[in-house]
Amino acid sequence: MASKLSPAQDGPDLATRLAATRGLSAALAAPLSDADATIQSMPDASPAKWHLAHTTWFWETFLLRDHLPGYRRFDERWPFLFNSYYEAEGARIARASRGLLSRPTLAEILDWRAHVDAAIAPLLDDPSLAGLIELGLAHEQQHQELLLTDIKHALFQNPLGPAYSSDAKAPSVESPADDGWWDHPGGIAEVGHGGRGFAFDNEGPRHRVLVQPFALSQRLVTNREWDAFIADDGYRQPRLWLADGWAWVRAEGVAAPLYWRDDAHFTLAGWQVREAEAPVSHISYYEADAFATWAGARLPTEFEWETIAQGHDPAGGNQLDAPGPVAPRGAPGLFGDCWQFTRSAYLPYPRFQPAEGAVGEYNGKFMAGQFVLRGASCATPRGHSRASYRNFFYPHQRWQFIGLRLAKDA
Amino acid sequence: MASKLSPAQDGPDLATRLAATRGLSAALAAPLSDADATIQSMPDASPAKWHLAHTTWFWETFLLRDHLPGYRRFDERWPFLFNSYYEAEGARIARASRGLLSRPTLAEILDWRAHVDAAIAPLLDDPSLAGLIELGLAHEQQHQELLLTDIKHALFQNPLGPAYSSDAKAPSVESPADDGWWDHPGGIAEVGHGGRGFAFDNEGPRHRVLVQPFALSQRLVTNREWDAFIADDGYRQPRLWLADGWAWVRAEGVAAPLYWRDDAHFTLAGWQVREAEAPVSHISYYEADAFATWAGARLPTEFEWETIAQGHDPAGGNQLDAPGPVAPRGAPGLFGDCWQFTRSAYLPYPRFQPAEGAVGEYNGKFMAGQFVLRGASCATPRGHSRASYRNFFYPHQRWQFIGLRLAKDA
Amino acid sequence: MASKLSPAQDGPDLATRLAATRGLSAALAAPLSDADATIQSMPDASPAKWHLAHTTWFWETFLLRDHLPGYRRFDERWPFLFNSYYEAEGARIARASRGLLSRPTLAEILDWRAHVDAAIAPLLDDPSLAGLIELGLAHEQQHQELLLTDIKHALFQNPLGPAYSSDAKAPSVESPADDGWWDHPGGIAEVGHGGRGFAFDNEGPRHRVLVQPFALSQRLVTNREWDAFIADDGYRQPRLWLADGWAWVRAEGVAAPLYWRDDAHFTLAGWQVREAEAPVSHISYYEADAFATWAGARLPTEFEWETIAQGHDPAGGNQLDAPGPVAPRGAPGLFGDCWQFTRSAYLPYPRFQPAEGAVGEYNGKFMAGQFVLRGASCATPRGHSRASYRNFFYPHQRWQFIGLRLAKDA
Amino acid sequence: MASKLSPAQDGPDLATRLAATRGLSAALAAPLSDADATIQSMPDASPAKWHLAHTTWFWETFLLRDHLPGYRRFDERWPFLFNSYYEAEGARIARASRGLLSRPTLAEILDWRAHVDAAIAPLLDDPSLAGLIELGLAHEQQHQELLLTDIKHALFQNPLGPAYSSDAKAPSVESPADDGWWDHPGGIAEVGHGGRGFAFDNEGPRHRVLVQPFALSQRLVTNREWDAFIADDGYRQPRLWLADGWAWVRAEGVAAPLYWRDDAHFTLAGWQVREAEAPVSHISYYEADAFATWAGARLPTEFEWETIAQGHDPAGGNQLDAPGPVAPRGAPGLFGDCWQFTRSAYLPYPRFQPAEGAVGEYNGKFMAGQFVLRGASCATPRGHSRASYRNFFYPHQRWQFIGLRLAKDA
Repeated sequence: MASKLSPAQDGPDLATRLAATRGLSAALAAPLSDADATIQSMPDASPAKWHLAHTTWFWETFLLRDHLPGYRRFDERWPFLFNSYYEAEGARIARASRGLLSRPTLAEILDWRAHVDAAIAPLLDDPSLAGLIELGLAHEQQHQELLLTDIKHALFQNPLGPAYSSDAKAPSVESPADDGWWDHPGGIAEVGHGGRGFAFDNEGPRHRVLVQPFALSQRLVTNREWDAFIADDGYRQPRLWLADGWAWVRAEGVAAPLYWRDDAHFTLAGWQVREAEAPVSHISYYEADAFATWAGARLPTEFEWETIAQGHDPAGGNQLDAPGPVAPRGAPGLFGDCWQFTRSAYLPYPRFQPAEGAVGEYNGKFMAGQFVLRGASCATPRGHSRASYRNFFYPHQRWQFIGLRLAKDA
Repeated sequence: MASKLSPAQDGPDLATRLAATRGLSAALAAPLSDADATIQSMPDASPAKWHLAHTTWFWETFLLRDHLPGYRRFDERWPFLFNSYYEAEGARIARASRGLLSRPTLAEILDWRAHVDAAIAPLLDDPSLAGLIELGLAHEQQHQELLLTDIKHALFQNPLGPAYSSDAKAPSVESPADDGWWDHPGGIAEVGHGGRGFAFDNEGPRHRVLVQPFALSQRLVTNREWDAFIADDGYRQPRLWLADGWAWVRAEGVAAPLYWRDDAHFTLAGWQVREAEAPVSHISYYEADAFATWAGARLPTEFEWETIAQGHDPAGGNQLDAPGPVAPRGAPGLFGDCWQFTRSAYLPYPRFQPAEGAVGEYNGKFMAGQFVLRGASCATPRGHSRASYRNFFYPHQRWQFIGLRLAKDA
Repeated sequence: MASKLSPAQDGPDLATRLAATRGLSAALAAPLSDADATIQSMPDASPAKWHLAHTTWFWETFLLRDHLPGYRRFDERWPFLFNSYYEAEGARIARASRGLLSRPTLAEILDWRAHVDAAIAPLLDDPSLAGLIELGLAHEQQHQELLLTDIKHALFQNPLGPAYSSDAKAPSVESPADDGWWDHPGGIAEVGHGGRGFAFDNEGPRHRVLVQPFALSQRLVTNREWDAFIADDGYRQPRLWLADGWAWVRAEGVAAPLYWRDDAHFTLAGWQVREAEAPVSHISYYEADAFATWAGARLPTEFEWETIAQGHDPAGGNQLDAPGPVAPRGAPGLFGDCWQFTRSAYLPYPRFQPAEGAVGEYNGKFMAGQFVLRGASCATPRGHSRASYRNFFYPHQRWQFIGLRLAKDA
Repeated sequence: MASKLSPAQDGPDLATRLAATRGLSAALAAPLSDADATIQSMPDASPAKWHLAHTTWFWETFLLRDHLPGYRRFDERWPFLFNSYYEAEGARIARASRGLLSRPTLAEILDWRAHVDAAIAPLLDDPSLAGLIELGLAHEQQHQELLLTDIKHALFQNPLGPAYSSDAKAPSVESPADDGWWDHPGGIAEVGHGGRGFAFDNEGPRHRVLVQPFALSQRLVTNREWDAFIADDGYRQPRLWLADGWAWVRAEGVAAPLYWRDDAHFTLAGWQVREAEAPVSHISYYEADAFATWAGARLPTEFEWETIAQGHDPAGGNQLDAPGPVAPRGAPGLFGDCWQFTRSAYLPYPRFQPAEGAVGEYNGKFMAGQFVLRGASCATPRGHSRASYRNFFYPHQRWQFIGLRLAKDA
């Protein structure tokens, strides 16, 4: 099983949380037309409708098909459409073709969701399935975030610049007073998930690491600072860049974060004036690394980040009503504004073992070529953040809400 | 002006024909959802919604903007979205990005269409605009055919194989009795449009050509014959193929016409069993040429085709109610089943001059690398066919209703 | 057989001509090191060594293997390396990989050439083989020209700009006095090869065509005129260009003929100052067409060109000693400076039949997507030019010595 | 400066070592013709001549230009040709174009080498330059290995399969008796270069890490074992592969290590029968990882590897005469057969700082997307191996002599 779950759960019961999570997915699609929910702007991103369907396929396959005797699929032809990458679950359409599925319609997908939700109900009391259901909830929450980042990217392609929603969340403005550093003396630290509550398999096993003395900035880099980097020819000085990053800058003609244009940037609420003190977002690893070099600092390792964040872990509470910034516990920006690239490659922890079966394809098979991001963003659903969480992307990718927190040697 | 028009017109008046043509475009979109009308399966094809909008942009730009004093565009931002390739009309979105436009919605496009139709009305009585309006009608008819071929291609990408419409037209079954040849003794012939009625600029000037003695098949090649070609390893013998064609077969893994699978093929009415005696369709020039070589024949030149077709020209009558096979005048299949590739490259006629201004970009600038197709297909609107009509595609393209008529030296 | 040959031949006997032609190939390679002769700058071009080897393979295969009992190949492994595109002769290395063959060495290839030459000698008296030998000679002459154009392109890639030979030929300077037009009243003309002497299969059958009245410039367009085209923003006005040409200009950033830099251009003698009155060369069909449009003229058809050139045909004499300008017969520049793009697509003549067997792959299978060029260039060997000759290239290709002669309607 | 150097050096003096290293480069080129030394088989690999020239450019630039007053470059045009990737040293030809440089000739490059060697002599006694000279030696040794792996790849492209040299070295056959494991109890270990002698900047700073208990195989995986992996459908089971690896297998049609064909493999001595007990080589990270998964083991981390290898470090002795297997110190295969992929991404050590100036581009800018390899191969020059050495390649690359050593949790 691809999760680490202790038997006892605090907070709302499973049925309540399942209803809330499933309802939130549908609510996220509410501002979208069938056509909006169908388009796909690049192979990395998926249509909103596809996210609604894929998460439902996940429940139907791994919970209903495998554990509900007599369950028959809503439509036998749909797994081919909505399996993402599970080789053990058979063939599927090419990722780049997800945007060609005008059928089934959004309404049909919502019908399917209701059908599956109803079928799940009798299984919620089976304690042997609790871990699988927790995995399904976490999986659906991940796709809630992707639904938002993907529709943002799709709407950005439209020269009309349509808004997803006028009151959509964005990274919040940092207080200038936050300009300090957390100092850490180094030593043996424990990292990885080891306590109660759900975690993905890639967050464990919990283990000890040796950390060198370091300092971690108490805030994210801001748009104002990024403007200074640009003004200082940051995108034109090869000495600041990793070799692959410099090749990327030149091949793609990169000269600013994604979504920037003049003094504005594209948001889920449409084109908006950029706020100077808001955290910069939608940057690649290459850009983050070049900025850090320019600033005389560096990116933190994932364990430096986690060691600090363990004192501010939001995972105790599970707020369910909407995605958006988690109530901070004294550390604004660690969770809920932007994901933060670390200089750690996404690799297995000691003694990591992927789960048996198809759900074992969840995390482990992506452990090459990507970097770990820590924290959470304004698009991360409440209840989905924790100090041990490991997100991962390729160094050129930047359509997620990705920002930057500096570190330095102490 | 990109058309050749004589002053007098028989048949329905302009207002009636405009209403019929504009109405047919909307009727063609009726079976489609907003999402269906938004997707784009390849850069060669456009979304149905885009066809509805582009034709409207054409009217709004070249008729209303240029000739209706005080006209204001419905939306100033839309020309950037719906200009196709008119360099003189400024920048536009990349062709491959047309499928990302979930907005404006299909309903908004239909509102625009009504707005433009109403604005056009007062101009219909101005005889100086009649030629331009005829061009607009012919242009819209071309897009009616493309709307059908493009949505067919888009729906084909969907593994569910949805039908556009259960009663959609398809190439009709030929009578086995049609198995004869038209013989022509050769000599000086007149070709090109020179009479009354509308024609595109590329159909003229009418001029004399010297034709060698030849024979032209009275029918199209059938699915049955194509099956024999496949059975005889037609797709595996390089000696049958043009060099570029053989490279295409190997690079794309081509082994049958587009839309074929086992004994079925994909149609506008969904997946259907192929009829052996129906004309083969959706073949490339490369395939047509290889088949002809295999059959010991060749493709006709465009002038051979036209010389024969002049005796069967449907252009006298303008039936308007629906796309579909033209009532034949003794020559089944010349018009209304499948376009027929000729061995003539698409090049200018002697003394050809493109029109002045943006509409001069209509035809002439495509005169390199393409082949001429003659006839019309089951998707061609009534009233849009004539013996001098020159359609053109690249030799690898086959998503149109393209068939094959053989010729031989006499 | 892929040639048209009358039984009697004037001029030097076959043995003399074979020796001269084979010797010229080797002489063309004399300025080159083994490394020079090995490199390949693009898939369209081949290494010099490869040309020496491929022509030898042609003789060994179609003459010695097929007609000399008991002949054993010099090396059984080499046909895989040096077959160009003859599908009937089996598999071969990818075209783009020809530049990876550091072995066999240039010396080994020259040994092979001597071996094959010796083996051919006894076959020269067999009249049944004369046509095949003529084809071999013409084939080798074509590769002599390609050897020069390909090594020019390869040396151009080297930032050091090395010269092939300090006394290499280039297009000659036109006399300003040549500024007239040949007028033709139109009518029935005979075109194609029909007389005595060798011709390729694609030059026939000789047949009648109907030509419209026209005028053909008596000289080629010059560098001075091309400078004026550039100065008038010729490369920046889309209205001058074919659609495919404009896309090519933008994708490749084309702003001048190939090999131009400031006031110089790269030649077989290295970088040289351009002469204003010399013919422009190394232009694509797209550029030629755009220039003609800018100049208010057009390209000639291949039959217009041939009709004029028939009065100036150099094919009577076969000078053998070196490549270079043919002694003009009153029409400077028709033959021997630059090939001239026509507006005619490369297509079969009426009743064209490719030869049986592998040599039938020589010409016919390339009849799609290319344009006909007429004349000859400064790199064409003497004795290889005639009024009916049809060269052909894709519209974007320009590494040959290609210039431009204007035509207009009379 | 991009190296860590203690003031005192044992072993031969600098002049002797410089002469030996420079001489070895020339000796490695001895079996090659000018043409052999010119070709380039892929952008990742460089021509042999280019390696000879680039290393000379390195000495001329960073030693002679910067430290020998009055030195004038041998040819001012050559830095553009032979700078590899040093942005601070200005523009240079595209990497993929290195194989088009038939000039300068191999002989000219060798003349340049002699010229530079002579110019260096007076600087050898300047102790302030010793570190830079050590870096130059190490740099040249790296290119000696690349020269061999690159010419192997180039000759492999030739269907004739020419040998580089009949007595070229290859990975040696392991003794079946080596089938044991080194067990390590875990704990704090010191890693990285910290002692005397040269090391690259990326090998330091030396620092402490916490290692988990593990076992490391005492031998490399063999061809026999790899055959078993293939026989068990190792290349056809997606569950064994990383997602990127599986995509690579399918896109490239990978079904065996590079250079394998039937029971043979291509070596520097030409095509040879594979020895079952020799270490498998020329595998990618993806293949190594899939094999380890199949075998129920995993790849070691770079620190696990180094911790074991510290007991077997060959860096004390500097044998100079030829590349090839280092005399083992009780651990056959750690050094001198094949590089060994670790599961560690190539990232900076704590407090790593690249050197100031152009030589600072040596290592640090490649720290994204690559994996660390440890050990040395049969192509590594003697004296270039040590326990702290960090080689790095992308996970799909396999043209180096790369093998596989398994690890497991203890």
